[in-house]
Amino acid sequence: MLDRIDHIGIACHDLAAKIAFYQDVFDLTVVSQEVNSEQGVREAMLRVSAAPGGASWIQLLEPLGPDTPVGRFLARRGEGIHHVGYGVTDITATLAAIGARGIRLLDARPRHGSMGAAIAFLHPGDVGGVLTELVQSSGSAGMPA
Amino acid sequence: MLDRIDHIGIACHDLAAKIAFYQDVFDLTVVSQEVNSEQGVREAMLRVSAAPGGASWIQLLEPLGPDTPVGRFLARRGEGIHHVGYGVTDITATLAAIGARGIRLLDARPRHGSMGAAIAFLHPGDVGGVLTELVQSSGSAGMPA
Repeated sequence: MLDRIDHIGIACHDLAAKIAFYQDVFDLTVVSQEVNSEQGVREAMLRVSAAPGGASWIQLLEPLGPDTPVGRFLARRGEGIHHVGYGVTDITATLAAIGARGIRLLDARPRHGSMGAAIAFLHPGDVGGVLTELVQSSGSAGMPA
Repeated sequence: MLDRIDHIGIACHDLAAKIAFYQDVFDLTVVSQEVNSEQGVREAMLRVSAAPGGASWIQLLEPLGPDTPVGRFLARRGEGIHHVGYGVTDITATLAAIGARGIRLLDARPRHGSMGAAIAFLHPGDVGGVLTELVQSSGSAGMPA
């Protein structure tokens, strides 16, 4: 069902500063930067691993304003790990299976995520306080239209 | 420097219940359970990916008591993501390099982690609120004695 840890999402106040930090301290490379208005974030993807079948990323998230999910997270908890994203092969089938097991879906249908991926979040209240995202990479077979 | 996201550590009140949850909802398998008295936790490792070069895990952590790092985390924040662990090839060299870049090390020398790994934590106050762990798997070349 879950293929890999695709990424961890990290909430921060200043995206440019945090990118510089991860580049300087951990020698990571930014592969993509984009604004996702739907989710209220400016974000960057830094590659941790490019292993076939095990690619993984750090996703840095700066809120577009205080009244966004990441803005509220920062106000409540400060900077830190915001969520985990697991790679899946077929996000529509996986969402259906998890929903059938009684987990509330924040996204009943996949939305647009980083780098063309299809994503969906599960309710953290049903996953032991962990905001959990499913990610189907844009290169995957069976990508929803 | 960082080879992959090795695992995310998730703090919970009841390890047995959380293991059952992750097995039932996400079809994951427990590979190892142990008590780490040094870190004050009872823990389980569930395999997410076995990809060569990209193996990744969920580490479930139940505190051995309230006056432990994970016990205090639960009291302050409740259940949720506690830390992220990155896989490295040579933990001693990586710690030296990161320390030389001004990051405080919670462990100046590697300690014993799950499944025979050598681990060390970086100070979250120097990593944007992210409790960051380095992990050198027991099978890696250059494992510290």
